[in-house]
Amino acid sequence: MDVLTLGNAMVDVLAMVSDEELARLGLEKNVWGLLDADEAERLYSAMPAGVEVSGGSAANTAIGVASLGGTSQYIGKVRNDQLGDVFVHDLRSTGVAYDTSVTTDGPPTGRCLIFVTPDAHRTMRPFLGAAHELTPDDVHEDAVAGADVTYAEGFWDAPCARDAFRKALRIAHSAGRKAALSLSDVVCVNNFRDDFLAVLEAGEIDVLFGNEAELLALFPDVGLDAAVGRVRDLCPIAVVTRGEHGSIVVAAGETHEVAVAPVGEVVDTTGAGDLYAAGFLYGLTHGETLARCGELGSLCAAEVISHVGARPQRRLSELVASS
Amino acid sequence: MDVLTLGNAMVDVLAMVSDEELARLGLEKNVWGLLDADEAERLYSAMPAGVEVSGGSAANTAIGVASLGGTSQYIGKVRNDQLGDVFVHDLRSTGVAYDTSVTTDGPPTGRCLIFVTPDAHRTMRPFLGAAHELTPDDVHEDAVAGADVTYAEGFWDAPCARDAFRKALRIAHSAGRKAALSLSDVVCVNNFRDDFLAVLEAGEIDVLFGNEAELLALFPDVGLDAAVGRVRDLCPIAVVTRGEHGSIVVAAGETHEVAVAPVGEVVDTTGAGDLYAAGFLYGLTHGETLARCGELGSLCAAEVISHVGARPQRRLSELVASS
Repeated sequence: MDVLTLGNAMVDVLAMVSDEELARLGLEKNVWGLLDADEAERLYSAMPAGVEVSGGSAANTAIGVASLGGTSQYIGKVRNDQLGDVFVHDLRSTGVAYDTSVTTDGPPTGRCLIFVTPDAHRTMRPFLGAAHELTPDDVHEDAVAGADVTYAEGFWDAPCARDAFRKALRIAHSAGRKAALSLSDVVCVNNFRDDFLAVLEAGEIDVLFGNEAELLALFPDVGLDAAVGRVRDLCPIAVVTRGEHGSIVVAAGETHEVAVAPVGEVVDTTGAGDLYAAGFLYGLTHGETLARCGELGSLCAAEVISHVGARPQRRLSELVASS
Repeated sequence: MDVLTLGNAMVDVLAMVSDEELARLGLEKNVWGLLDADEAERLYSAMPAGVEVSGGSAANTAIGVASLGGTSQYIGKVRNDQLGDVFVHDLRSTGVAYDTSVTTDGPPTGRCLIFVTPDAHRTMRPFLGAAHELTPDDVHEDAVAGADVTYAEGFWDAPCARDAFRKALRIAHSAGRKAALSLSDVVCVNNFRDDFLAVLEAGEIDVLFGNEAELLALFPDVGLDAAVGRVRDLCPIAVVTRGEHGSIVVAAGETHEVAVAPVGEVVDTTGAGDLYAAGFLYGLTHGETLARCGELGSLCAAEVISHVGARPQRRLSELVASS
């Protein structure tokens, strides 16, 4: 297994809105925020017509690795309802291994309401639903120890799921495999800074993904250069994504600036970070240089921002072959 | 009410496939075919990961009219399940009136598996599900008599739903309103030729929509010119769509050739006919000339073929204003 990923399983509901509509809905642009069941119901009622696409940050990454021709597995929880069926179908049909047990009662499959503005930015409001029910028991030691990289998203809001993510990262690192963590969102960093720093300072993270804002939130007392210096000391490989300015790959003695891959019209940036991680980890598990890993990340991100939704609409292996 | 539409309520499941994958799935390109529950399950299992978008031909048309700023209502049946909730949400949030009762047991909300090839053609395999449960009792006389146009799709496979469509068309025409029918698909014409000809020959249809292939299937003994001549005799307005060659609007003493509207990349032609009808009927109920009605149809069709899914992703009223 090349890459095992863990996260909150979700179906995304994406709608295009103007900045005015976003404000009318009471949403602050680009700011992430959890919904409970009632809030999700209320906001969905007020939301324009949408498109449903399987999502969930770490699941998108697993899909990306499989679409590149790598082997991947996903751990995350859905219910046995229609959206759960869609989520599981989309994983397995792309070739991602998935054997987490589904719930048969309790909250429905999680969904993330995503509001996409004309500038292609996305404002996300997830309702965790059944994703909340993931527990450390869903993490099987042999599966983790058998994967070259284990990758967890930074949405650590559900306590049992967080324990599951930490358990997996610990097993992976202890087994001499690579443990990878995404900072996921500035709100996550603000909420779980101590947890993230704890695993980083314990030396349990081998690869860290984050964008500039997330990195600055992780080290709120310093500027970007110093923040990059700190992650260089804290983990062997760190990737800092910078939107249209490309990305930086930082390792002990190396720094690589990676340009963005060309893209026609940028329609919806949902999933850009997830697919960047997929390309990077595919490269890393296939003997590519760090610079090439970054290029693969950029290529995959460029595909997913060219259309609505966080899952690739064409086979990424073909995209790479033709690039 | 400008336009009332009736049809099989569906959520579309769209996946991009190569011609080879289509053949491997045993599907004949562009050929429509109904699935029963077991077949739907089996084909979905073999289908690549997809995108879910509310669909249903006549529902797409109602959405288009509302998105243009017109008033529209939809009659069609879903179940009280997650996909049914999505379907109803997407209708109402676009401003389409909808008050058909939902079923609480029996088959789930209908879905249409749609395979989109790189040439943007779509091969559709619908499972009717709850759409089968529509009956003439769901058609309220005052609603139909209060709409300028009542439009029914040609997917007349479910016997009770077919009776509901026919009831609505009859009420509309008798009330001095316009009854509009779409031929929908060559397979529909082959299956229901006698029914379609019966309502046309009874003079109950005021506006007929079809593409060239459907028209030739309706009159299998003659060529296109003669077929156009026959529909000119059978109903006051007929619209013949011709894909990238535009469309022809035929009325008693008039014939208008309408060019296609410019479109960047054609991604997925699903919904092209439905949105053409929306633009045309919006024009017709807003005092436009037949030529302008055709232009509005072309504009709306151009929007929907530029992305995945049969529902517009931007407000059509803004598109028209900026054209």
